[in-house]
Amino acid sequence: MIHISLKRLLLKKEVSFIVREIMALLGTPVFVQDSEGRVLLGNAGEGCFKNRHPIKLGERVIGWVNGGERALVLASLLSYLATVELEKKAIGREALEKYKEITLLYDITEKLTASLNPKDVAQLVVDQAKRLIRADYISVMLINEDTGMLEVVAVSGEGGCYTDVIEALTGIKGNVVHTGKPEIINDILSDSRYVRKAIGVSSLMCVPLKVKDRVIGLIIIGSRERINYTAEDMKLLSALAFQAAADIENARLYDSLKETFLTTIHTLAETIEKRDPYTGGHTKRVMNYSLAIGSELGLSEAELERLQLAAVLHDIGKIGIRDGILLKKRKLSFKEFEEIKMHTIYAEQILNHIKNLKKIIPGVKHHHERFDGKGYPEGLQGDGIDVIARIIAVADAFDAMTTDRPYRKSLGLAVALEELRKNAGTQFDPDVVKAFMKAYESEKLLSKEADTDAKHINSG
Amino acid sequence: MIHISLKRLLLKKEVSFIVREIMALLGTPVFVQDSEGRVLLGNAGEGCFKNRHPIKLGERVIGWVNGGERALVLASLLSYLATVELEKKAIGREALEKYKEITLLYDITEKLTASLNPKDVAQLVVDQAKRLIRADYISVMLINEDTGMLEVVAVSGEGGCYTDVIEALTGIKGNVVHTGKPEIINDILSDSRYVRKAIGVSSLMCVPLKVKDRVIGLIIIGSRERINYTAEDMKLLSALAFQAAADIENARLYDSLKETFLTTIHTLAETIEKRDPYTGGHTKRVMNYSLAIGSELGLSEAELERLQLAAVLHDIGKIGIRDGILLKKRKLSFKEFEEIKMHTIYAEQILNHIKNLKKIIPGVKHHHERFDGKGYPEGLQGDGIDVIARIIAVADAFDAMTTDRPYRKSLGLAVALEELRKNAGTQFDPDVVKAFMKAYESEKLLSKEADTDAKHINSG
Repeated sequence: MIHISLKRLLLKKEVSFIVREIMALLGTPVFVQDSEGRVLLGNAGEGCFKNRHPIKLGERVIGWVNGGERALVLASLLSYLATVELEKKAIGREALEKYKEITLLYDITEKLTASLNPKDVAQLVVDQAKRLIRADYISVMLINEDTGMLEVVAVSGEGGCYTDVIEALTGIKGNVVHTGKPEIINDILSDSRYVRKAIGVSSLMCVPLKVKDRVIGLIIIGSRERINYTAEDMKLLSALAFQAAADIENARLYDSLKETFLTTIHTLAETIEKRDPYTGGHTKRVMNYSLAIGSELGLSEAELERLQLAAVLHDIGKIGIRDGILLKKRKLSFKEFEEIKMHTIYAEQILNHIKNLKKIIPGVKHHHERFDGKGYPEGLQGDGIDVIARIIAVADAFDAMTTDRPYRKSLGLAVALEELRKNAGTQFDPDVVKAFMKAYESEKLLSKEADTDAKHINSG
Repeated sequence: MIHISLKRLLLKKEVSFIVREIMALLGTPVFVQDSEGRVLLGNAGEGCFKNRHPIKLGERVIGWVNGGERALVLASLLSYLATVELEKKAIGREALEKYKEITLLYDITEKLTASLNPKDVAQLVVDQAKRLIRADYISVMLINEDTGMLEVVAVSGEGGCYTDVIEALTGIKGNVVHTGKPEIINDILSDSRYVRKAIGVSSLMCVPLKVKDRVIGLIIIGSRERINYTAEDMKLLSALAFQAAADIENARLYDSLKETFLTTIHTLAETIEKRDPYTGGHTKRVMNYSLAIGSELGLSEAELERLQLAAVLHDIGKIGIRDGILLKKRKLSFKEFEEIKMHTIYAEQILNHIKNLKKIIPGVKHHHERFDGKGYPEGLQGDGIDVIARIIAVADAFDAMTTDRPYRKSLGLAVALEELRKNAGTQFDPDVVKAFMKAYESEKLLSKEADTDAKHINSG
């Protein structure tokens, strides 16, 4: 509530002058008291005070004017001035709140739209909420459309133990999802819908993330201590939720398309490979080895994206090689091998049709070049070969050596690693081999194999 | 500027009471005039008025109190009340403006984030600007990153003649792009940077669309008549531009990824087809015929999307068929044909790996079913066959008949159309054939052939 101090009002230069002049005009003794009886102006012991006129702010008495009957004018004046002051402050407070809200809206628009990754957007929402509202626990949960369950996608506070939480649409959260209305629960223990969970919060706020009229998730804010979340807190959180919902939804659509894209080209590439039944899974493994090497070499996000696409599509040109040669189990003749070599050229021809994939042509076309210049199709040498191609060359060779082929069994890990080491500087870029060894030793390669996600794909 | 009426102030009940009481207390004749000399209170002819005290609002005199020396208190009181009133109004106006801005921000967030199509977002920006600001001409121009030119993507007013405008970064627009600062030019003819163009505007406003610190385009607003665009207009337009830039950029990224996706699967599908040199372009034609039929049948956007993807990938299963059979120029044996039929099953196996493409499996798998149940692989009948598959069946057959094949020449348009008609109800869905004929007659099929755009692809 807004407080108006009668004392401070009387200290204003103009008001002080006017009030003293009126007191002088009245001619009889007058004194002004605040609501607690303290004398603010005039001398209470000066004479007899027939009347006690209240100074009112709405229904509330904030002080008294003591004096004769005519001293009423002073009480009226002070009541009026206090009322106007209150109105001014109320409007001012509203303007300030609106100003804060606008600043917030611009700020979150700028931050949240900067990413098209749903997890990143959700994390930004959590960070923003933390800045705005007192809380020990903040999380963004989204409804998984396939399962209908709520999943935590970003969280702050209380350690990482609450990520990967999956919940049914029950209790308070279920209620907010179903009604689409935000809720403040300042005393959670007395709420009948409360379900005892690991999160030790006493007060919480739960706001729906809505796209048009569809609830896609929630922002949940909790305090360990019992505090009073206010309507103002709720308004700020709702403003954040409004923008966040749209941005998370767009990020999800983008992510879904990205996943579809990567899975599709990956599946098609694997299928092309499948004409050779011994190399199933080759594409995926080469992609994972390549990304591990790329991270080790400190490639940028954009380079890793190029690397991932090039690794997935590195053998796409084999689509143009006839079965009779591609699937041949015995040693190829010179002429047949010349035909096999053509897959690097075919790949270029295919990718040339796809504007946003032209950038990966060097990585794909040159993955059979050798560091010493004795490779194909162009006999490029050293740094003249795109780093993407130099990485794929190592990943491809390692996978070829460690899997069974039509004409021989797997060479085994030890032999394959030794071969890479032996050929570093001749067939392979020594830095790339070093990065591969480092990734191999830190077991990144193994963990990568389980990871089929499309992390680095982006449109160009 | 905010106006304070002394007359209206004196009419307020509380003020009127206080002023009259003070006048009574003064005991000598007093009257109050406004700045133009009109008497607002008291009687000017009543006696002698030694003093004339100004009622001041800042430096401005808004009236006079005429009376004795002590009447100064009344002038002071009215000055103070007028000042407080002015402050209240000023804060109120600010709050109202902020309120409008907030409403606008929520409104545009809701509208602009609802689409991930850059042209739709730009059109919404134009519509919003029209609602907000007086203008005869509004356009959104984006910088084409490949050409460095400004291109109109949405426009309102003065007919459609200004779409497809492409401009270099010169003149006023070039300036706004280079400085990143908005400009108001209320008299365009006197601006030295003005380049005479078809748009007959006299006053204009030009605001950059900025993503982080990068200018990606402009919003331009113009009036035929010379008017004064104000700082307030600029502020509204800038708020719109702020949100619009982020949304347009995200829509462009989405669109670019969509295009890459479609071009990639299309190119890969065509390449798979290319193992049979006689059918190059088959995939694209089947897609175009299918979409023409789908539009004719009034399919929803979501259905058209499914249709487009299914048409592009309808023969993807051929990847699993050996060259020896797929490329055979003579008639296939029974056993060989049984192998060819497997491509519908292979397609299902491939697409089953791609979560968001599972929805197109019925359209792909059943494009060789017949309306009378005599097709393959499952012998489905009538409406039991997905409408997508019934459409692709017609499109596929028409293209097969009108192109040269290894074992025969094209049958020609007339024969192909007659074949479709003859087999409507047996091999083909008669409604689909009817829709094809209608599309054929309205020449939609021909225009479609030039259109390689990815209009209906969306992630699932």
